[in-house]
Amino acid sequence: MNEITDAAIIGGGPAGLTAAVYARRAGLSTTVFSSPEPGSQLLKTESIENYPGFPEPVSGYDLLDNMQKQASGAGAEIIEETVIEAELKKTPFSLKTDSGKNFMARTVIIATGAVPRSLGLDSEKKFAGKGVSSCAVCDGFFFRGKTVTVAGGGDTALGEALYLAKIAAKVYLVHRRNEFRGTESLQKRIHAVANIETIMNSVITEIDGGKKVESIAIKNNVTGETRMIKTDGVFIAAGQRPATGIVAGQLQLDSTGIISVDAQGRTSVPGVFAAGDVAEPVCRQAVTAAASGARAALAAADYLKTL
Amino acid sequence: MNEITDAAIIGGGPAGLTAAVYARRAGLSTTVFSSPEPGSQLLKTESIENYPGFPEPVSGYDLLDNMQKQASGAGAEIIEETVIEAELKKTPFSLKTDSGKNFMARTVIIATGAVPRSLGLDSEKKFAGKGVSSCAVCDGFFFRGKTVTVAGGGDTALGEALYLAKIAAKVYLVHRRNEFRGTESLQKRIHAVANIETIMNSVITEIDGGKKVESIAIKNNVTGETRMIKTDGVFIAAGQRPATGIVAGQLQLDSTGIISVDAQGRTSVPGVFAAGDVAEPVCRQAVTAAASGARAALAAADYLKTL
Repeated sequence: MNEITDAAIIGGGPAGLTAAVYARRAGLSTTVFSSPEPGSQLLKTESIENYPGFPEPVSGYDLLDNMQKQASGAGAEIIEETVIEAELKKTPFSLKTDSGKNFMARTVIIATGAVPRSLGLDSEKKFAGKGVSSCAVCDGFFFRGKTVTVAGGGDTALGEALYLAKIAAKVYLVHRRNEFRGTESLQKRIHAVANIETIMNSVITEIDGGKKVESIAIKNNVTGETRMIKTDGVFIAAGQRPATGIVAGQLQLDSTGIISVDAQGRTSVPGVFAAGDVAEPVCRQAVTAAASGARAALAAADYLKTL
Repeated sequence: MNEITDAAIIGGGPAGLTAAVYARRAGLSTTVFSSPEPGSQLLKTESIENYPGFPEPVSGYDLLDNMQKQASGAGAEIIEETVIEAELKKTPFSLKTDSGKNFMARTVIIATGAVPRSLGLDSEKKFAGKGVSSCAVCDGFFFRGKTVTVAGGGDTALGEALYLAKIAAKVYLVHRRNEFRGTESLQKRIHAVANIETIMNSVITEIDGGKKVESIAIKNNVTGETRMIKTDGVFIAAGQRPATGIVAGQLQLDSTGIISVDAQGRTSVPGVFAAGDVAEPVCRQAVTAAASGARAALAAADYLKTL
């Protein structure tokens, strides 16, 4: 491709694909770089009940497949390669993919997502989607009246425990240190809720079960003792790692490592936009990612009018 | 209903119904007041191509019906009455509907939408969805390579004309005054685009056609002359009227009349949230409304933890 595309969108999740639909409908030539690996977090989601417009549960695969068809149908070019370099310091911007190809773009929309941090256990992968989750808002509803365990000690972990306490019968909150890192007001709330039990100085060393999670092994870091507790779900709240590698040093990030954007997805560099989890501080949902993609594409179209 | 609901959601459009799904899944008792009249703007949309996840066009009716089933399925109570009074100055909040019933709520989510201002022509209603639109981002794509007319002179009208100029072959911009109200930078861009023709001191007095819009009559306010121009589409960009009647004097509004909210939909009153077009300054799309509903519901769940 020697011509310059109006909008290069890096990422093929709900943010990137929605941005592609909106960019195309705004009359922009549009290229989406959809990395085959690791792919959107949606792909790992077997059943989504909260994406608006789908009254029956839909799989992440089907939802993304629909969005990809919609983006292609609108005329976006979808390239299944990974962008490994982005030159955002001069215009037109240039991108290089893992196949060694170079692409030029008038605007770039970063929609590379985020990767949830894991505990590093093999059993965590084995039970992913079968009781192990990294998103209480996404999956909490499947544990109505059941017992769940949250691993972590920051604001996210405390927030997830409080969220789950309204839904589940019992919530264990396991943290490796002797005090939480989360804000004090959240800590106070945790201690005020009757069905949350905190387990400090402890780490999850094993997740067990049959088809689904049934129990976990917890090791106390101080005494060295390991005990088993029954639990139906394990929520890993060890934070997210926003995929900002290719923009490092080029775009302003906030203190948590996400890309700083305004309400319409504009980054610190004119002509460069960000959408979805890579720029989302609070609400990492398919619908919020999609909406931010729409906003970023319209902001990109707006920006192009000024050139 | 004598008990107090956790979340009372006023409005049955994409913002309100998505808020209901998220509120229920967060464990909140949830009541949606879905006004039968005038109803969501989506209901007037025959074919939506840009709602992510639907590669084939979907009607506004079907999309909303899906969202309503999803909200009911999640356990939200949907009451088809119009809220005519909201008492937001003391908690629990209280609402009164047009049937005279009273409801109490720990949190309220305002998702009452906005009504596009019209030109006041009978022919405007006749051709609604048949060439007459109030949203270039929604409907512009249907006019690829055609001739369209934008009516208005503010930022919205100028923005819509610029948006459409990338898609349509020709754009007329009709404004009743001898100068635009929109910002100077937008005005400059309008004059720099070759396929935009401005028609000042003029109003549209008639919209004509068969099954679809074919032409409009334009009257010059200065000379009194009326002429006919051929056009395939008419975009009414006379602004929106956010439906803030029931919260007047109780919530802070911004200078354009929408409800002021932070990024998570919190209004100036703790426990009261707003989502969708009633609080949206820029991007009035089904997906952005839905996303803001999700955020507002999660913020409401967060707020309830503090009580």
